[in-house]
Amino acid sequence: MSRVLVIDIGGSSVKLTAEGQAAPVKVPSGSSLTPDAMVAAVRDAIADWDVDRLAIGFPGPVKDGLPAREPHNLGRGWVGFDFARAFGKPAKVINDAAMQALGSYRGGRMLFLGLGTGLGTALVVDGVVAPMELAHLPYRKGRTFEDYVGKAGFERNGLRKWRRHVADVIERLSAAMVADEVVVGGGNARKLRLRRLPEGVRLGDNSLAFQGGLRLWKRR
Amino acid sequence: MSRVLVIDIGGSSVKLTAEGQAAPVKVPSGSSLTPDAMVAAVRDAIADWDVDRLAIGFPGPVKDGLPAREPHNLGRGWVGFDFARAFGKPAKVINDAAMQALGSYRGGRMLFLGLGTGLGTALVVDGVVAPMELAHLPYRKGRTFEDYVGKAGFERNGLRKWRRHVADVIERLSAAMVADEVVVGGGNARKLRLRRLPEGVRLGDNSLAFQGGLRLWKRR
Repeated sequence: MSRVLVIDIGGSSVKLTAEGQAAPVKVPSGSSLTPDAMVAAVRDAIADWDVDRLAIGFPGPVKDGLPAREPHNLGRGWVGFDFARAFGKPAKVINDAAMQALGSYRGGRMLFLGLGTGLGTALVVDGVVAPMELAHLPYRKGRTFEDYVGKAGFERNGLRKWRRHVADVIERLSAAMVADEVVVGGGNARKLRLRRLPEGVRLGDNSLAFQGGLRLWKRR
Repeated sequence: MSRVLVIDIGGSSVKLTAEGQAAPVKVPSGSSLTPDAMVAAVRDAIADWDVDRLAIGFPGPVKDGLPAREPHNLGRGWVGFDFARAFGKPAKVINDAAMQALGSYRGGRMLFLGLGTGLGTALVVDGVVAPMELAHLPYRKGRTFEDYVGKAGFERNGLRKWRRHVADVIERLSAAMVADEVVVGGGNARKLRLRRLPEGVRLGDNSLAFQGGLRLWKRR
């Protein structure tokens, strides 16, 4: 049976999950992580796993199946890196927010917002995932959406104001994208108050990135 | 042979085009036009046309195949109006900017911007058209994109500044949508200087709305 290994590359760890594997495994990440070092660490960690295809969530824009910009939180050398060649297996690479968006999708038009260091955005339309770069659009006082709801905004404005801005940004971006549903994921999503989420908004779940990786291989 | 009648509902006229018909025909529109009056005028105009299906471009949001909001420039009574029943023929209804976007599509990810009274927006991803409402996102000084590049912005700021704002808005929205290509249509697109259009940007063509209407019926 053919098995997919899903590699979710994050700033603090690289998460490995595979079909038929009981639990995910994490290998350390960080601001000096190069793709070669990542490949070596992953190869070690999954030495006895039976996988034959890869789905990779990359924390930056992906163009034509390859990383298109150096990630903010990792080392250098990622642009154009050929994961399929490095691992010797077929690999599909997608933006990490897009992968989680795809895994969270239930139907209609869904906007995914990933609250972390920055603001990751993706839209799923009729099952087709489209990574977006809404973070850098202007929001207020000459600053962008990301400036307010990313980590810097959280630290600058404090929890209460940050929550208010997140609620407002969800509403604005949802209307702009004509979304039927909004899924809020990312490391800071847990800082929101669950009871205050408006209708049509649900919290994401990191484990859904794994589902997204599988779906990458299940579709045309 | 089955023939599609494409009805493009605008603020100054309703444009009728059909397969096998030599030239489009226009019937008058305006701020008091009701859907019943529109249907009667269209029926008169096409009395001897051989059409059996309709594709309708509506100047406002469409939800589940029906107008979802009263249009700014027409009379009342449009919300939920059942065109298929009124005409006695199968009808597909879509936002008018989305119809032109679909007709303009050549591949990849395409952003359509319609410059008219307001700012119409639509995104086409892998052949799937997604009407957008980007117009009302904040742009600068507490005003929206539409406030600057719509008719009011043109009148407030004059041609030169308006052109500069349009160029800036094209760039920002194109980056935010990660578009491969931008098509600029709508009545005011002709006010742009053709030679100054950045790479990856082309002018739309109203006649492509007809193609968009046909494509509505050609797809799944």
